[in-house]
Amino acid sequence: MATLQLDLAERSYPIYIDSHLLKAGELLTKHIRAKRVCVVTNDVVSQLYLSSVKELLSDFQVDEIILPDGEAEKSLHNFEKIMSHLLANTHGRDTTLIALGGGVIGDITGFAAACYQRGIDFIQIPTTLLSQVDSSVGGKTAVNHPLGKNMIGAFYQPKAVLIDINSLATLPAREFSAGMAEVIKYGILGDREFFYWLEQHTDAIKASESSVLIEMIERCCQCKADIVSQDETEAGCRALLNLGHTFGHAIEAEQGYGNWLHGEAVATGMVLAAKLSVALNLLEASELRRIESLLAAFDLPLEAPETMDFHSFIKHMRRDKKNIGGKLRLIIPNTIGQAVMRDDISEDMLQQIL
Amino acid sequence: MATLQLDLAERSYPIYIDSHLLKAGELLTKHIRAKRVCVVTNDVVSQLYLSSVKELLSDFQVDEIILPDGEAEKSLHNFEKIMSHLLANTHGRDTTLIALGGGVIGDITGFAAACYQRGIDFIQIPTTLLSQVDSSVGGKTAVNHPLGKNMIGAFYQPKAVLIDINSLATLPAREFSAGMAEVIKYGILGDREFFYWLEQHTDAIKASESSVLIEMIERCCQCKADIVSQDETEAGCRALLNLGHTFGHAIEAEQGYGNWLHGEAVATGMVLAAKLSVALNLLEASELRRIESLLAAFDLPLEAPETMDFHSFIKHMRRDKKNIGGKLRLIIPNTIGQAVMRDDISEDMLQQIL
Repeated sequence: MATLQLDLAERSYPIYIDSHLLKAGELLTKHIRAKRVCVVTNDVVSQLYLSSVKELLSDFQVDEIILPDGEAEKSLHNFEKIMSHLLANTHGRDTTLIALGGGVIGDITGFAAACYQRGIDFIQIPTTLLSQVDSSVGGKTAVNHPLGKNMIGAFYQPKAVLIDINSLATLPAREFSAGMAEVIKYGILGDREFFYWLEQHTDAIKASESSVLIEMIERCCQCKADIVSQDETEAGCRALLNLGHTFGHAIEAEQGYGNWLHGEAVATGMVLAAKLSVALNLLEASELRRIESLLAAFDLPLEAPETMDFHSFIKHMRRDKKNIGGKLRLIIPNTIGQAVMRDDISEDMLQQIL
Repeated sequence: MATLQLDLAERSYPIYIDSHLLKAGELLTKHIRAKRVCVVTNDVVSQLYLSSVKELLSDFQVDEIILPDGEAEKSLHNFEKIMSHLLANTHGRDTTLIALGGGVIGDITGFAAACYQRGIDFIQIPTTLLSQVDSSVGGKTAVNHPLGKNMIGAFYQPKAVLIDINSLATLPAREFSAGMAEVIKYGILGDREFFYWLEQHTDAIKASESSVLIEMIERCCQCKADIVSQDETEAGCRALLNLGHTFGHAIEAEQGYGNWLHGEAVATGMVLAAKLSVALNLLEASELRRIESLLAAFDLPLEAPETMDFHSFIKHMRRDKKNIGGKLRLIIPNTIGQAVMRDDISEDMLQQIL
């Protein structure tokens, strides 16, 4: 088992990565403070893993909330539904929420934990690759708003993250690929060696070799933990984790949440950011091709939907949370292994690549 | 002018108390980080003070959200309305919200600031006595849920609190009295001398003598700031500030929010807590009478609504946020000037006094 620690003083917590973690009860139960828990999950994941998790919790009073699957469910409406359920069942401040599922479940459950009675404990059990390498670590919680993704939320850290790579076995191939976009992102934004490692291990990853998956996820979580412990609330370097996301969010918003998977939109967003960098004479054209090849090896889309033009991008990008004083701020790779934030990209320049 | 500081490391902030503060722009503007602000207020307060506040902000781009007046508006629905307004008007992370109004406006605006894009700055300009001595200080933000008051919220501190006692001149007498319940609370729970001072200055307070009001509000804010700086998230002593609130919340919930004012419910709640203490042979009967007299001097109700019996209290009290492991936790005064939290009050004992 790989165990990492996210260091944030009194809010520090462990990240466990292994196969068969959903059979190891003690790792879960030692982070639960009282006798009541409420598992929040969706109708797909619940059929696969809810009974295993409940077995781990046989000494606890276990309540459950099962939402429909999908990004469209990450809504204020479902947030309210969780609040109502917890209140109707008289959950107190000592209840622990357990997020069992992908990024949607993790984000909405974390936000519910942040707000219920002004904050209760929660634990992440991410079951998708994307949530295992990205959204379950670092305390970004949120729901979507029709006018923008993740616009309503909080920085609120879990008490522990349990990553069982066995849950990837039931993940649809398209969702696994979407997760790979975030994996590849870590290589592009900060770890050239890891990017090479991914090129070399593409077949092993696609064959789901356990030791390779554990190492891959561990390297992603370590990278994220290092960045978050330096900058919990995205005042600085944490913004680099948004590589590909500004373009990506525009694609998701324009296409309707869920039609493009988040990871797919990020993959295309990273290609656009890389093209911008080439246009600025920073990234070499050969590096752009390597990025495209690695993304393509995992069946990720490299081009924006044909229906989207410059204007459909820019209207969403102007609402991006990173923008300050009305200025667009974009993350671009200078080279494979190093990204920077730029606030000097003109709309003309954007129009050229979009 | 009285200036206090709430000490919470990097989240520390000043509390300014004076007359004519709404004419002193620099105290407000120095806490605004960028050029955009959005004032959140209600349709009563906006007619009285919005133009003054906008004059102070002539160098800024000022947006406004005007909610209907009343406790019923402290809802998730209006929270969503604020989010939608901010997004539709492309407010970024550097926008500052200004809460101009009473506790309802302060609480919902603070919660909106806590959640909008995972947290933006906000400033409190409380215009009611209750919000000046209590809710604007200490970072408790929330909205109500049909199943309980303040059940959805966050601990999120403002950047500054500006208390202009002149705004009390336009406050309806009933609301001033409701604020006095929270003022008297500080005397009962932690400052016997202040309780005596209030007994001696009842007439001056009712005559709105400026120097007396400033001293009174300063003493309340100092007491609250001392407690909050020791225990920001109510893990310990902060719970004492809930004296009278467990019974009070039950009254408010049972009567429908807004029919009883919060301060009125707290006044009756404090009498019930004091009666409980007398029944436990702690508080002397003469002290109970002094508490009742001081509350009565400000026209506050001393008895629960006739329609409420033991069962209508207990069903709400079982949902109180202070409860742990299903056990009721109540704050009671041991004597005037000292309160304690008890988790050993039986329902039989409660039935006796309710």
